[in-house]
Amino acid sequence: MREAGLICVGCGKNFEGTKVFRCPDCDSPLDLVFDGHGIDKSKTCSAERYHKFFPFEPHEIISLGEGNTPLVSVPSLAEKIGVRSFGIKNESVNPTWSFKDRGTSCCVTHANALDFKHIGTVSSGNMAASVAAYGAYAGMKTTILVKENLADEKLAPVVIYGARLFRVSGNYDDVYNKSLEIGKDKGIYFMNSDVPFRAAGSRTISFEIAESFDFDVPEWVIVPTSSGGNIRGIISGFADMKRHGYTNKVPRFICAQAAGCSPIVAAYDKGEMKVKRFPDPDTIAHAIDNAFPPSGNETLALLKKFDGIAIGVSEDAIISAQAEQASKGLFGQPASAVPLAAAYEAKRRGIISENDRVVTILTGSGLKYTAAFSRHKLSWHECHVNDLHESI
Amino acid sequence: MREAGLICVGCGKNFEGTKVFRCPDCDSPLDLVFDGHGIDKSKTCSAERYHKFFPFEPHEIISLGEGNTPLVSVPSLAEKIGVRSFGIKNESVNPTWSFKDRGTSCCVTHANALDFKHIGTVSSGNMAASVAAYGAYAGMKTTILVKENLADEKLAPVVIYGARLFRVSGNYDDVYNKSLEIGKDKGIYFMNSDVPFRAAGSRTISFEIAESFDFDVPEWVIVPTSSGGNIRGIISGFADMKRHGYTNKVPRFICAQAAGCSPIVAAYDKGEMKVKRFPDPDTIAHAIDNAFPPSGNETLALLKKFDGIAIGVSEDAIISAQAEQASKGLFGQPASAVPLAAAYEAKRRGIISENDRVVTILTGSGLKYTAAFSRHKLSWHECHVNDLHESI
Repeated sequence: MREAGLICVGCGKNFEGTKVFRCPDCDSPLDLVFDGHGIDKSKTCSAERYHKFFPFEPHEIISLGEGNTPLVSVPSLAEKIGVRSFGIKNESVNPTWSFKDRGTSCCVTHANALDFKHIGTVSSGNMAASVAAYGAYAGMKTTILVKENLADEKLAPVVIYGARLFRVSGNYDDVYNKSLEIGKDKGIYFMNSDVPFRAAGSRTISFEIAESFDFDVPEWVIVPTSSGGNIRGIISGFADMKRHGYTNKVPRFICAQAAGCSPIVAAYDKGEMKVKRFPDPDTIAHAIDNAFPPSGNETLALLKKFDGIAIGVSEDAIISAQAEQASKGLFGQPASAVPLAAAYEAKRRGIISENDRVVTILTGSGLKYTAAFSRHKLSWHECHVNDLHESI
Repeated sequence: MREAGLICVGCGKNFEGTKVFRCPDCDSPLDLVFDGHGIDKSKTCSAERYHKFFPFEPHEIISLGEGNTPLVSVPSLAEKIGVRSFGIKNESVNPTWSFKDRGTSCCVTHANALDFKHIGTVSSGNMAASVAAYGAYAGMKTTILVKENLADEKLAPVVIYGARLFRVSGNYDDVYNKSLEIGKDKGIYFMNSDVPFRAAGSRTISFEIAESFDFDVPEWVIVPTSSGGNIRGIISGFADMKRHGYTNKVPRFICAQAAGCSPIVAAYDKGEMKVKRFPDPDTIAHAIDNAFPPSGNETLALLKKFDGIAIGVSEDAIISAQAEQASKGLFGQPASAVPLAAAYEAKRRGIISENDRVVTILTGSGLKYTAAFSRHKLSWHECHVNDLHESI
């Protein structure tokens, strides 16, 4: 591993080395400080193609082949929304079927370079499966912490990889920070939602979008947002591309949340720069139901810096967008439909214009949350084989 | 679309044009006859990268970004099996999370080039979802025919895309051929499991494997086999690569089946060249439970031609292989574990040697068939947040 450092996005403190997960002084998230860059066009796996943006040597990379996901252009949605083009970056096409694999690959590579033998995460969905899979592949002991009320059916797709899983009762809000403490004591690398190398891993989404547009980046990128780690990484990826001269502008961003759990939108709407805990969160978009996002303040700061906005969308709009996306061939989990719903709303408000090119992030597979089927009107026909000819 | 033809793999009859799905004379499957070739290394999407192997113009291609899936090397499995290397081609990293998307993209492109407005398929799993998704993306009317005993829960992931679905009662065996008849009458392109452009679409799996090995192809490729369309396409892809001078040999192939539904293995073991209907099929590997495979005879012929073999594996071996694959970070549906089980068996029999490089095809995501979880011993811990430090 090459030399790199970290910087606190809250107080600006610089850290030499990379073995810290959150600022001990101001409890803000940290950003990777590393100035390398370069695209190896002979490689199609993201971790290899963009490895020069990371402080890892190529032979150190631990990858299940994540990234290089398709950006699917959907002209009929562009027309309906009323924009120049509409693209869906399909992150469900990843080894554990969500965007989390990019950050997990980056964190596991980092953990291994630092000689950790034990990794973990605090999650109840996409990230749990992702860390379990990459821990298994890397041959590391892997510990997953989830909420006590999580259904048994959501645990099987995690423990199938062989991870140790703890369903934690009591005050769950403490678990995020407690895991980092325990990790420090016991030598466990907890790769939670917004640790610096996870956010840094999300940058490859931006690199790929920029390449898809031949570096003439789109006007808008819409990201479903929970902890804020992913949108932070995506924004920083576009900023890196511009800083190193690959592109001449940075897109504007929409932080898209479910209205039923929208702490960042609430602060944004009031012009505040600090998120407050969102009371009584309730949304079908479980993958983005973080009521008190650890990168919430930083997301607000980045939206301000890059002229972005935050939009919350209703449950009905989410279900409707999930169905509409599927009707174009892309079946995402409910959280992944939030950006489409936000695109309609942003156009309605006149924020997105008809000349704009819009890209949304479909973060995870619709197969991740099959309970959502009950919210759709789904039907089929019964028919005898002898009547097939006239029934079809 | 450029000029191309079809040839019957049974009687050798040649067809001008490509608007036939099965030989009307001898009821055998057809192969695409097209001599173009070339790799566009600037593209990462398979349909674009390998388009010169297909009679389509680039602008005609209808693609959701399928293919370019990772070939994951698992040294610990190579060591345990006792071979030089062991790679898993992870086809779950596709837009509808199975290998079917390659053939579907090819068929939908073909259907569109022939000006079909209505497509369909006879399937109960991966292919149904795939055709539904690509039909939705292409804006085509889409009709899916499934067996009458298929559970409601398996229908939702298909109809969510907006396809018309018929659950067909009566003698289901007739449906495959009946669909082709009805398609001819009503102008519906039924892209069933082994129609020529679906098999041709599977060739990109071989092209990618060859590229992964810098064209020094592995000694063995193991394919879970149901209708035979996929293994036919994969073998033909490697044969194309050799014919056009990209490689200097063709791997040997193992047609891997669940012993509980193994019509091709049964014929192979008796030295017969015709498959018989497999009586009372019963296996957890539902994705490959075709009791009377329409490309079964052709698969037997290809195994003979390329010195391949056929192996059946037990239900216990399948479950055990599914768990073992997951313990390396790759969670496939039960059918996708059959090749790993077959690799152990082939090594035990002395067919695969310790100097051989082996590649298996993981055909679809483990999330496709969650009922399999009940066959695994899965457990987790309960813990109070205050006890977390000492419990971990």
